[in-house]
Amino acid sequence: MNQGMTKKLEVDLQPIGRRAEINPDETLLHAAQSAGVELVAICGGGGSCGTCRVRLMDGELSPVTPNEEYELGAEAIAAGYRLACQVRPLGAIRVDVPPESLTTPQRTQVEGREIDVEIDPVVKPIDVTLPVPDLYDLRSDVTRIEETLGQSIIVEYPVLNDLSDRLRRQQWSARLALRDSHLVAVLPRETKLLGLAVDVGTTKLAAYLVDLENGRTLARIGAMNPQIGYGEDVISRIAYANHHADGRATLQHRLIESLNTMIGEMCAEANATREQIVEAVIAGNTVMHHLLAGLPVHQLGASPYLPAISDPLEVRAIDIGLDVARSATVYLPPNIAGYVGADHVSMLIATGLWNTNKTVVALDIGTNTEISVAHHGQLVCCSCASGPAFEGAHITDGMRAAPGAIERVQIVDGEIRIHTIGHQAPVGICGSGILDALAEMLKTNALDKRGNLRKDDPHVRARNGKSEFVLAAALAAGHGREVLVTRSDVNEIQLAKSAIRVGIDVLLAEAGVTYRDVDEFIVAGAFGTYLDLNSAVRIGMFPDLPRDRFQQVGNAAGTGARHLLLSKERRRIAKDVARRNRYIELTTYPEFTRHFVAAMYFE
Amino acid sequence: MNQGMTKKLEVDLQPIGRRAEINPDETLLHAAQSAGVELVAICGGGGSCGTCRVRLMDGELSPVTPNEEYELGAEAIAAGYRLACQVRPLGAIRVDVPPESLTTPQRTQVEGREIDVEIDPVVKPIDVTLPVPDLYDLRSDVTRIEETLGQSIIVEYPVLNDLSDRLRRQQWSARLALRDSHLVAVLPRETKLLGLAVDVGTTKLAAYLVDLENGRTLARIGAMNPQIGYGEDVISRIAYANHHADGRATLQHRLIESLNTMIGEMCAEANATREQIVEAVIAGNTVMHHLLAGLPVHQLGASPYLPAISDPLEVRAIDIGLDVARSATVYLPPNIAGYVGADHVSMLIATGLWNTNKTVVALDIGTNTEISVAHHGQLVCCSCASGPAFEGAHITDGMRAAPGAIERVQIVDGEIRIHTIGHQAPVGICGSGILDALAEMLKTNALDKRGNLRKDDPHVRARNGKSEFVLAAALAAGHGREVLVTRSDVNEIQLAKSAIRVGIDVLLAEAGVTYRDVDEFIVAGAFGTYLDLNSAVRIGMFPDLPRDRFQQVGNAAGTGARHLLLSKERRRIAKDVARRNRYIELTTYPEFTRHFVAAMYFE
Repeated sequence: MNQGMTKKLEVDLQPIGRRAEINPDETLLHAAQSAGVELVAICGGGGSCGTCRVRLMDGELSPVTPNEEYELGAEAIAAGYRLACQVRPLGAIRVDVPPESLTTPQRTQVEGREIDVEIDPVVKPIDVTLPVPDLYDLRSDVTRIEETLGQSIIVEYPVLNDLSDRLRRQQWSARLALRDSHLVAVLPRETKLLGLAVDVGTTKLAAYLVDLENGRTLARIGAMNPQIGYGEDVISRIAYANHHADGRATLQHRLIESLNTMIGEMCAEANATREQIVEAVIAGNTVMHHLLAGLPVHQLGASPYLPAISDPLEVRAIDIGLDVARSATVYLPPNIAGYVGADHVSMLIATGLWNTNKTVVALDIGTNTEISVAHHGQLVCCSCASGPAFEGAHITDGMRAAPGAIERVQIVDGEIRIHTIGHQAPVGICGSGILDALAEMLKTNALDKRGNLRKDDPHVRARNGKSEFVLAAALAAGHGREVLVTRSDVNEIQLAKSAIRVGIDVLLAEAGVTYRDVDEFIVAGAFGTYLDLNSAVRIGMFPDLPRDRFQQVGNAAGTGARHLLLSKERRRIAKDVARRNRYIELTTYPEFTRHFVAAMYFE
Repeated sequence: MNQGMTKKLEVDLQPIGRRAEINPDETLLHAAQSAGVELVAICGGGGSCGTCRVRLMDGELSPVTPNEEYELGAEAIAAGYRLACQVRPLGAIRVDVPPESLTTPQRTQVEGREIDVEIDPVVKPIDVTLPVPDLYDLRSDVTRIEETLGQSIIVEYPVLNDLSDRLRRQQWSARLALRDSHLVAVLPRETKLLGLAVDVGTTKLAAYLVDLENGRTLARIGAMNPQIGYGEDVISRIAYANHHADGRATLQHRLIESLNTMIGEMCAEANATREQIVEAVIAGNTVMHHLLAGLPVHQLGASPYLPAISDPLEVRAIDIGLDVARSATVYLPPNIAGYVGADHVSMLIATGLWNTNKTVVALDIGTNTEISVAHHGQLVCCSCASGPAFEGAHITDGMRAAPGAIERVQIVDGEIRIHTIGHQAPVGICGSGILDALAEMLKTNALDKRGNLRKDDPHVRARNGKSEFVLAAALAAGHGREVLVTRSDVNEIQLAKSAIRVGIDVLLAEAGVTYRDVDEFIVAGAFGTYLDLNSAVRIGMFPDLPRDRFQQVGNAAGTGARHLLLSKERRRIAKDVARRNRYIELTTYPEFTRHFVAAMYFE
């Protein structure tokens, strides 16, 4: 349809107060995205997850679809609820966007182990004072620098663009930023050279501004990955990239835009300028890596799920639109496989798995959980399709770790004690909460080994012929709401924990050891840091090791990114570790399905 | 002034039939430029050359300036003539642009010696068939290529952007274009790899499309340098770049735009695509070099006239907007000094001055004439400010080598015989014509040694108290016009020939020889190829050597650019030759002025 000929329809999004204009053949989800309103859209706009719920306040929409009938139910539809991805406006409309449909600001994680690495960054400063030219000293500006330094240099094109004017403006005195023999920035003398380290998660971004001279982190900041508005998980993002014109570019630009904002905020905090940032390291899973770098993702979305590139990738900041020094390089650590990416390598760098003779398990739990096992200096790794249950998806009252989420559960003497984020009235349950809930329900026998709810438990009730565990009762006066754990919720967690446990066990078997031989068990990432280890062991997700062998290390990918920013040697190691970490493809692993089914039980 | 608030004025340029809209504070020259109408503007819009003459047909213009009174005279002003650079419209206007104010299509030169070089280009093809991936062969696309090639590669970013999709589209079969270890293009198997060689002259462009496998030139094309509309010579261009916002970018973009058009035409002729062009060599003088590469030129316009860079420069085609393969490199040969540029180095490569034990003079005559002398394997060079007289500027009836220009003059038995380009009625005189005219006038004693016209010569007449030589009489019926040689024209040529001759003599003195020792005297460039050697010797511009020691080699810079496209070794030599060619700064040379004045005489 020729857009130029089409009458645009106005969409008014409340209570946020944003407006968008869309074509009659476009969906409300599209309208929200174009207005910068980030709706949750876990399935990427396929009408199958029910998370992009909005309520019509004014105007007329296209007819209710079967997907909506299934996801919303008659009652909600009668109350005006619709799925934004399914409906098209028939005229100007006004809709209400409930808070749970928005990707809310959430706690993000920018901690992680502190830096312990010999500082030898790839970009180094040299202060020079150049001889002033005259008619008897006619050397070109570059030759003048080379002869002062006593070495040949390659001047990066954006530096050369401004070099002559800048040298004269700075009266022939300058701090040169050299990346091996490449001149990547010319600054006033003694200006601090800075680096940027970023962990790009599918959900969250964590960024660090680092002093390249002493390794100190000058500022840190967390934010949501804006790509969430285009699909909650990597599969939905790939689908978005494949099925929309400029989809890949849109995802790249939105991400870079967010990073540029974060950089600006960190620069303000550290009283620095963007042109001081002469190098960046960005670690993400393979899909985030490819989308950030603007690489094709078709092949990552279909078997056999191959990365375009597995070795470390260096791109110029200006090539991807990252707003730092114009000649800065962005280093992306190597990927191991389609679903074991640069963020996992970065985590291995931070946790020292490349350099241990112990038997160590290291994992980062997410929709895909990447696991590596080190044993006698050998490395083996895999990726488990653990699903988004721990991020609150596919769970009846699930939500991400945002204010009002139940994050801790205890059952003491038959009484349920809950703790919510921000000490607010409960509005749902996040990953660590559901983990605790199941562990406590197992302890009190509200749950049997197969995952069935016991009907005789005082907190279990039957409704519509199904059992459900009432974790929190509805409160009066509109504060808080009833939070349930259903049989289907339990099943989701069974699938997730089984996937993770089988991954661990397969790798240990490949290494020729059992879980009893594990010296260290490293749990990285935001969820891994907040989860209760006893709960994880009780439901069988983690093996029952002495608790002092566990370490919850926070955002190790971010820490690894900082190591890679500060140390050339660590980059050499990253390349090596990615190559020698043997990837096990679980889908073709013998008897994988049998192991997986067996691990579903709670024992 | 806020442009958004200003009412635009319409300018109608006739008979070309182009329209432009400009702000009331902008000049007609600006309007013409923005409409793509290339007016001659030798002085760069300073009101001092009188070349951007237009005639008002309709509407009102700003008052006549003193510059216009001086340059045009009362009669022309009364007839409606104005200088486009001096006037602003006071409302909608229509002007007539006479042909002589347009930079007309002219003969350009794309010949030059044929290629004689061992073919070893920097980019080479390798045809591969890659193993098809499956769940048991999970190597990334890049690793797959590397292991098939048996070598590590660095995939250029634009190639990586499309690599995965392209390999699958081409069913894992491809021709790889490798530049050392860099993968710069992926094409269907057996696709020809091509190179682009360009000589960017201040006035003219010559481009060649070359088969990198066998060195054959598949297409060649000449065009005017579109920057002429912004100033005839390099000084005016520098002034334009310095004094206009985005001036530098405008000059770069106009040039690249023209090159892209030329590339398109050559591709059509050779039945090739732009993405087959995987490497380019562009040679120009130092100012053209800097403007092409988008480098600052402030420092080239003021003493001591330094280049930003003298060593060879490699930029990515996409960085300067050159529309060839997206990962192609543009190689710019080294510069020697602010006024001895990459085109001179390219000429030295083509003429073999880097590899001779003879005593050889090589020069390319232009507004600046660059000269090198080789003696016993040593090289010495200089630049002479010979001025634009040979391009027709500052000569009463001067013009460039366009149709109607007198290019040959003989005086036989007192009768003047002229030859014009295109056999048209004479409308002016170009460089080779004025050279011949002076030589013949010396022969017939119409001119004395000091450059005075003899009043008793039958072709010399007095007007307004000044003598002038009538070279061609006006013809009837508006065809042709009277063409004169005045005392002041003679003086311009005296200045030019003296500058060149002193340059030659200084270099020979530096080499420790005299002109009698010269074994070869190489004259390169368009003017150098068309000029009559006897005339050049007779007026003392060239030394009186046996004629067989002279060689007129055409566009040697273009030939050198092709050598540099086809041979890595030639690039090594270019870098070396630029460094060891000792530059002599004539302005600080002892007794330069005395030599210069002495060489003004005709002896």
